[in-house]
Amino acid sequence: MNALETLIKLLARLPGLGPKSASRLAYHLINSDSHYNELLAEAIGTIQEVIFPCSVCGSFTESDPCPICLDEGRDRSLMCVVEQPQDVLTIAASGSYNGLFHVLGGALSPLEGIGPDKLNFEGLLKRIDEGSFKEMIIATNPTEEGDTTALYLRHLLKGKNIAMSRLASGLPIGGDLEYADRLTLARSIRGRVDFSD
Amino acid sequence: MNALETLIKLLARLPGLGPKSASRLAYHLINSDSHYNELLAEAIGTIQEVIFPCSVCGSFTESDPCPICLDEGRDRSLMCVVEQPQDVLTIAASGSYNGLFHVLGGALSPLEGIGPDKLNFEGLLKRIDEGSFKEMIIATNPTEEGDTTALYLRHLLKGKNIAMSRLASGLPIGGDLEYADRLTLARSIRGRVDFSD
Repeated sequence: MNALETLIKLLARLPGLGPKSASRLAYHLINSDSHYNELLAEAIGTIQEVIFPCSVCGSFTESDPCPICLDEGRDRSLMCVVEQPQDVLTIAASGSYNGLFHVLGGALSPLEGIGPDKLNFEGLLKRIDEGSFKEMIIATNPTEEGDTTALYLRHLLKGKNIAMSRLASGLPIGGDLEYADRLTLARSIRGRVDFSD
Repeated sequence: MNALETLIKLLARLPGLGPKSASRLAYHLINSDSHYNELLAEAIGTIQEVIFPCSVCGSFTESDPCPICLDEGRDRSLMCVVEQPQDVLTIAASGSYNGLFHVLGGALSPLEGIGPDKLNFEGLLKRIDEGSFKEMIIATNPTEEGDTTALYLRHLLKGKNIAMSRLASGLPIGGDLEYADRLTLARSIRGRVDFSD
């Protein structure tokens, strides 16, 4: 197998890339600025040495504990529970949340054999027992697995005296009613908010 | 800027990837098999040292002249002219062509300032004068630029005693009439083929 085929095959294993887009990328890399190729190769080759999960919250970091866990400006009575490390960045980037995070590492899925033992509930319980959390936002995905995980969390934390909420589901801002799927529409009707003067 | 942001920024510069898909890839790379990351980094970092354009036909190769140009089993009276190096692989992979190739390096586009001097017409003329080509298939893209380039080639090779043809345009196989755009449909009607018994 020649170098071009090897590169295409490797690129095609990335998520969201098929053989066609992989070969398009490969041809782009043959023609692109060689300094860029060096930088990209270096970044890919070293990313796993540099980035690892925070021992406290589980989000990706270059130093342990992560900057968010250490940030004294954050509200330490507020906890946001998410499925994946990338969800931390997404929510932090929204600018609407100033508390701490906890990454479960996935969502409960009996069909895929992901039970409570596969997710980091233990670390969460420990943090709640040792911390001073008053409120928890459950930000698991609005999917069946995310909903199941949220229900499990509610059950797990019963009696811990922590106010719990879930992210609102409904129509995306800027979206069009016409293109909303039934489930989203049903949720947005069920969860309608008061608009009286 | 930290390592993760650097990687995402570099990935987002690849064609067809936006910031969202770039960060999805970056997170994938953090979690993926480290041996795979090494192989990918190595392949990206070295591709430009290994692959270069064939001095004869202009397609990408690891040895000069390229294996297609050297292949004695190919019909040396047949020439296929394409815009880009990747078009050579696409047509060679179709299994329906057994002649030689010539890469122009693009298509004529007065609007983008790409005139005949920017494309490899000179090399093509030299090969035709020195070779024994009897037929030429013009496989430029079915776009305005590709059409212009084909017309220019017809004009350029007048009197060279070479039969010329263009790839057929029309409905894609397995496609649906309903979804065909007007231009494609118009071409497929104009270029309709005899179906009488």
